[in-house]
Amino acid sequence: MTDVQMQDANGHANGSTAYGKAAVNGLLKVGSKPAAPKQTNKEDLQLVLQSFRLLIADLCQQFGMEGVGCEALSYAGHLKLNNLTVIYDNNQITCDGSVDLTNTEDVNKKVEACGWEVIDVMDGVNDVEGIVAALEKGRDPNRTKPLFINVRSIIGVGSAVAGEAVSHGAPLGKDNVAAMKKVYGWDTKKVFHIPDKVKKFYEDIPARGEKHVKEWNDLLAQYSEEYPDLAKTFKERMAGKLPDNWASMIPSSFPSDPTPSRKSNNMVVSNIFAECPTFMVGTADLTPSVNMTWPDYEIFNPPDLKPISGKKGSYKGRYIHYGIREHVMAAIANGLAAYSPRTIIPITSTFFMFYLYAAPAVRMGALQKLKVIHVATHDSIGAGEDGPTHQPVELAALYRAMPNMEYIRPGDSEEVAGAWKRAIEYDGGPTMISVSRQAIPQLPRLTKRDGVGKGAYVLQEEQEAVVTLISAGAELSFPVNVAEVLSEKGVKARVVSFPCHKLFREQPLDYQREVLRRNEGIPAVVIEPYVSLGWERWADAGVNMKGFGHSLPGKYIYQYFGFTTQGMAGKIEGFVTDFRDGKVGRGEFVEL
Amino acid sequence: MTDVQMQDANGHANGSTAYGKAAVNGLLKVGSKPAAPKQTNKEDLQLVLQSFRLLIADLCQQFGMEGVGCEALSYAGHLKLNNLTVIYDNNQITCDGSVDLTNTEDVNKKVEACGWEVIDVMDGVNDVEGIVAALEKGRDPNRTKPLFINVRSIIGVGSAVAGEAVSHGAPLGKDNVAAMKKVYGWDTKKVFHIPDKVKKFYEDIPARGEKHVKEWNDLLAQYSEEYPDLAKTFKERMAGKLPDNWASMIPSSFPSDPTPSRKSNNMVVSNIFAECPTFMVGTADLTPSVNMTWPDYEIFNPPDLKPISGKKGSYKGRYIHYGIREHVMAAIANGLAAYSPRTIIPITSTFFMFYLYAAPAVRMGALQKLKVIHVATHDSIGAGEDGPTHQPVELAALYRAMPNMEYIRPGDSEEVAGAWKRAIEYDGGPTMISVSRQAIPQLPRLTKRDGVGKGAYVLQEEQEAVVTLISAGAELSFPVNVAEVLSEKGVKARVVSFPCHKLFREQPLDYQREVLRRNEGIPAVVIEPYVSLGWERWADAGVNMKGFGHSLPGKYIYQYFGFTTQGMAGKIEGFVTDFRDGKVGRGEFVEL
Repeated sequence: MTDVQMQDANGHANGSTAYGKAAVNGLLKVGSKPAAPKQTNKEDLQLVLQSFRLLIADLCQQFGMEGVGCEALSYAGHLKLNNLTVIYDNNQITCDGSVDLTNTEDVNKKVEACGWEVIDVMDGVNDVEGIVAALEKGRDPNRTKPLFINVRSIIGVGSAVAGEAVSHGAPLGKDNVAAMKKVYGWDTKKVFHIPDKVKKFYEDIPARGEKHVKEWNDLLAQYSEEYPDLAKTFKERMAGKLPDNWASMIPSSFPSDPTPSRKSNNMVVSNIFAECPTFMVGTADLTPSVNMTWPDYEIFNPPDLKPISGKKGSYKGRYIHYGIREHVMAAIANGLAAYSPRTIIPITSTFFMFYLYAAPAVRMGALQKLKVIHVATHDSIGAGEDGPTHQPVELAALYRAMPNMEYIRPGDSEEVAGAWKRAIEYDGGPTMISVSRQAIPQLPRLTKRDGVGKGAYVLQEEQEAVVTLISAGAELSFPVNVAEVLSEKGVKARVVSFPCHKLFREQPLDYQREVLRRNEGIPAVVIEPYVSLGWERWADAGVNMKGFGHSLPGKYIYQYFGFTTQGMAGKIEGFVTDFRDGKVGRGEFVEL
Repeated sequence: MTDVQMQDANGHANGSTAYGKAAVNGLLKVGSKPAAPKQTNKEDLQLVLQSFRLLIADLCQQFGMEGVGCEALSYAGHLKLNNLTVIYDNNQITCDGSVDLTNTEDVNKKVEACGWEVIDVMDGVNDVEGIVAALEKGRDPNRTKPLFINVRSIIGVGSAVAGEAVSHGAPLGKDNVAAMKKVYGWDTKKVFHIPDKVKKFYEDIPARGEKHVKEWNDLLAQYSEEYPDLAKTFKERMAGKLPDNWASMIPSSFPSDPTPSRKSNNMVVSNIFAECPTFMVGTADLTPSVNMTWPDYEIFNPPDLKPISGKKGSYKGRYIHYGIREHVMAAIANGLAAYSPRTIIPITSTFFMFYLYAAPAVRMGALQKLKVIHVATHDSIGAGEDGPTHQPVELAALYRAMPNMEYIRPGDSEEVAGAWKRAIEYDGGPTMISVSRQAIPQLPRLTKRDGVGKGAYVLQEEQEAVVTLISAGAELSFPVNVAEVLSEKGVKARVVSFPCHKLFREQPLDYQREVLRRNEGIPAVVIEPYVSLGWERWADAGVNMKGFGHSLPGKYIYQYFGFTTQGMAGKIEGFVTDFRDGKVGRGEFVEL
């Protein structure tokens, strides 16, 4: 390894660098008071800045351009996050050249317009004291706004490519690293060498860290004596513990009349949300649609904010109005989850289709195995009038393919209960609970909440079956009705509920065979108004969407696309005959 | 139908309303001079405003919050689009309540910071003259900035729910519509009734339209006489015609040494881009990586902009530096494509993984069947060091599932030629050409550009084969090498190149059987370092990714995840044996 390789390994956006880990694991301790700034002189600080520059020369100019950055800027200013400081490494360089090739906005004015305070550091290369002074201003507890430090820097300073785009996208190379060291008065021959003066500057870090830990532990001990109940709660929250009885807060049964599964969601979780402060629940401006509130919920907002609508909040609030900002909603939820496992369990919510806007952050949550629960409503063409812009047909393929993500489509209130039980228990990544806008039939003698955790289970067995019908979510009653019609025609069908691909994929082969019975020669047909991609693994044929949806009221749209009981029964009967007669080639998935 | 239903059918974001179509089909004619404003009086204008209000009460407050809006704002200001006017229907209402619940930024200041001029209309309910005056200012050809008209409006004005969130998300209902009509002095009993005064105001529209068309035709006739060559070009462009010889600008052969397919892209299209002004090519700040430039390309930028990097441009330029704004890049490309079919063919480019940021706009292009070509490089774990944040494993599932989208992974330069040939010919929606960062082997005696258009084709036939190996893109050489090793072990394998799911799905069943031969009992194994989801339709087993990637240099990463020739050959040999011995159940996809 050389300096150059290390630079490369620390490329932008790589997430968990050694730095990040150190910060999380030891140097920063939750709740600790800011330590008194260490006495330093300018020379020391310059040296430290140099050593950082040699370690990570690759910083980004994305802030202010990328949409999610703008969403964060706008919302953080609104929330008056006075303990947030952003250092803007304003080197005016992107991969393509100088930033002004594509961005000439007045960044300070834009940031101020969003409710931030701005401090300029005009000479970010030399004015180390200016940077430190600005950072210290960010620690002032009397602040009322987040702080934006606009540091004018020069990328690759000291090298032959200083201030050029090539310093951003490519490793500097041996010669340029040596040139930088020469400018700094360092030994140009040594690589991965930390000069003694730098080491010396940092040598008291372990001792300081120990001191912080001790102070913290003493404070907590004192607190525990004075406030034993609060201290117990605090420790349980930090240990990620939910109340022992959380699962019993889920109703054991549900009304049997048709219910939108987005309303079932509320019946299942509103008690848990009300009782367990672990849950931070938010929505991207769809409160009336997503049904994620609970009685007397409090809004997370600055306490001095007096909205026109009269909905006041406080920083104790656990309901977050993210605004029409899906992407940053998911990103903030990741941050809440990353703080400490299960100390906060963040819930996001919007229409399923709008999780395409949030997808890059949802993916980062999956990559980092963060426990976030995404609530996606209006998850089918059944959403109706809003039309194909709001009707997902291909999006499930993304979330079913995404590693660590459990995308669950529960088929009635009972299965909604199972989906939440699994989601609250699952620690391997995010969950997406995908529910319906429209009322859907309840299947009280058929559905089983414990079946959801296995991904799929037999809803209706039929020993002599010649076909297995598979479905999920809002359309789970479809195969039940189709099976009845087929039975009248003498075609015996069994029915499988299949709420989650990932969970079923992880079951033992024996269980999979027991559920699907394809190894007994019984073909499977899936009914789902998404495109078929992904179902071909579990079925031999499908009644699926072949293109985008259409703007029609819910009661007409299924008919328009052929999802009628009689229509589907006819197609499936034809398929069963073709299959029996050997007209379907091995491994050939048939679109019905 | 009632007023209420019509409101509902015109819900936000629905795209192609009757209004939009009327505007595109007749009222606005490309290139026509702005007509002199019609003489109107305040009363007339108020009436028109009322009729619009009754038709569409559902307008959005998304601008300023949603990331893509901020990207557009920033870039339009940079480009100094002096013929762009945005009317901000500032009604301070979202679904959740008043906007200040989640957004308290100074919108005017933010917009000005992005290089726009702002005009306030403080009383958007009554000050119709103010709105008209602002709109007329927007038509001033001497403007130097885009114009933002901040109209303070009251949602649902005249109804009992005026200024309330419920007017946004739900139909107003009969009583409220009647209340509005009463306030306006309209007949409250009549529904879908256009008062005579409104009709009269609009009655000269057909005649004005005819006049515009005649003026335009006369102008074009005069222009054609004065500038016959330019007029010919203009007419061909408007007819969507490319030069007859465009396909012959693609080289007939390519160098045989290993080549990154992102570089093959440039070999294939740089002549076409240079010669055909139809193509508007852009990138989200990855010019050095995507290889989409051509000799002497000109940048699209304001002519008076003098960037620090010295890269000047003009409005004649056809190369667009979109900045780090993937989402709006795809949205703008949609707009360019929607202008008129094939008059402009927009090309976007970035890393494949970053097309997740652009996905909502890419989807809107697919929904509207817009001809946009997206160039996605670094499309595999082979991208290397940048790690799992940059290594797609699940994203292909989204684009393979998206209706109308052709996601193509060409396997060498010859297939890259085929991918572009298909993309330029395809008029049913967008194409994504997915290429490699790293050099990949060329297969000059095997690959066929015309095979790409069929989605899949036989790369190496073997009559006595016991297994078919399938692959695509950067890894197409893998099955060729594996087949050789298997052959040494006496296991005869044939190889299929499979660059595009959609194109193969659309082939006749006979062709599909000829290529895959699964109906002859030969199992197929896919080799692709994405997750398997979607391949189960075409294969019985797969060597695929089971989770996210890893940060490793390209030469180590395939090894790390088991994509070595010997390793894969061993697994596949085992599978072939299991398959022959009946250990693989019918329809059971095996992850190797």
